[in-house]
Parts: sequence; C-alpha cells; structure tokens
Amino acid sequence: MTTIEVGKKLVELCKQGKNQEAMDALYAPDIVSVEAGAMPGMSAEVRGREAVFAKSKWWNDNHTVHSASTEGPWPHGDRFIVRFSYDVTHKPSSRRFTMDETALFTVKDGKIVREEFFYVTG
Amino acid sequence: MTTIEVGKKLVELCKQGKNQEAMDALYAPDIVSVEAGAMPGMSAEVRGREAVFAKSKWWNDNHTVHSASTEGPWPHGDRFIVRFSYDVTHKPSSRRFTMDETALFTVKDGKIVREEFFYVTG
Repeated sequence: MTTIEVGKKLVELCKQGKNQEAMDALYAPDIVSVEAGAMPGMSAEVRGREAVFAKSKWWNDNHTVHSASTEGPWPHGDRFIVRFSYDVTHKPSSRRFTMDETALFTVKDGKIVREEFFYVTG
Repeated sequence: MTTIEVGKKLVELCKQGKNQEAMDALYAPDIVSVEAGAMPGMSAEVRGREAVFAKSKWWNDNHTVHSASTEGPWPHGDRFIVRFSYDVTHKPSSRRFTMDETALFTVKDGKIVREEFFYVTG
C-alpha cells in the first residue's frame, strides 16, 4: 500500500472504532510510538507491536469513550497526519474530559513504522 | 520563546490574517519550506526567508481568500502541528475551492527553521 492508502485505511478503521484492527493490519513489527508527554509510570517512547498494543490496552481499560472523531489523512511523502478527538471518562477518577490531538505517522514498505502524538501537556 | 509559545503566536497572528507578520516575527533566516507537492513551475522545497516570502506573495497575488481558519497548535518536543483551512478563488482561473491542510513546524532557538505542508495532491 502507498502512504495515502495506509492513511486512508487507518482513518476508515478508526472512524468505525476498530483501532485494534487498524494496528493489527497496518503496524510494522518494529513500530515506534512516541507521546508528547509520558503518562504516569510509563515511558514517552515504546517500541514494538507488543508494547504499543499494551499501551493501547492500558488506555482502553482506563477510559470510557463517549464519542470519538478521526479526521485526515493529510499526506506528505512517506508521512501523514491524522487528527483525533475524544470525549472520554477516566475510569479511576470518574473525570470526564475531551482530548484533541494530532498524530504524525511514518510509513515504510506499506506499514506504519513510527507514530508521534502531538498535544498540549501539563 | 518555547516551542508552544512560538506555536501559539503563529496561530494567533494567522487567525487575525497577519500571516506576513507571523513570518516576519517567527521565521529563522535559514527557514526551509517544503510542500507536499510542487506547485506548477515551482520547487517543492524552498530555502531562506526571501524565497519563502516570495512563495507566500505568489500565493496571495493569485488567490482571493473568502474565509480562513487556523487550529492548533498541537506540540511535541521541538515541533508543533497547525491546521489551516481556506475558502479561496484562484484568480487566473476564477475557480473557487476549499483547501484543508496541516503543517508541521520545527523550532530552534525560538524561531521556526522548518515548515512542511501536508495535504492531498493531484
């Protein structure tokens, strides 16, 4: 798949709430995932599908998603940007909040090898 | 200025339509500007404030802006992403169209040293 095809597939699956399916289909074995800020007790950067899937599972286990939107992709060479918005409740604290972030994905040989999340921290 | 301060200033000025003032204030002398696709007769990559300002002037001379919106910034380390949307008419062809793009900016020593525009081409 080309970069734009990978981006469109990712957005299409995320719009359907199929984020795990998107990762299964599109993430390279050596995917690197980098947060703008480290979550409590976690590293800002994790490597490999297992670690990325574990991070996603942690997030899903700790949040109830009330609504979500995915916009993009905006491509440029072997990279593309996607915008994610969420209305969620953090289960442990029962605090409800909105998240608005963008992510920069890098594609190599038809798979996503790097994802970097951009958002305001602190 | 920190990366987030530079991003906020850029967005604030662009929201006011002060794009040239934003470039004057925030662009480094050796700024590199990279398009997702080359415009007709132009290079996808230009270097230096003069070349970037000339590209901006070419764009302004050739388009009438009916409305514009700027969203962001979404920061990550020394970079941030901004989303730009425009409703414009291309003057030579009188064709009206909308543009929806994101841009990835890199900051060094309080100035923007690189801008990369992400959008669907062709």
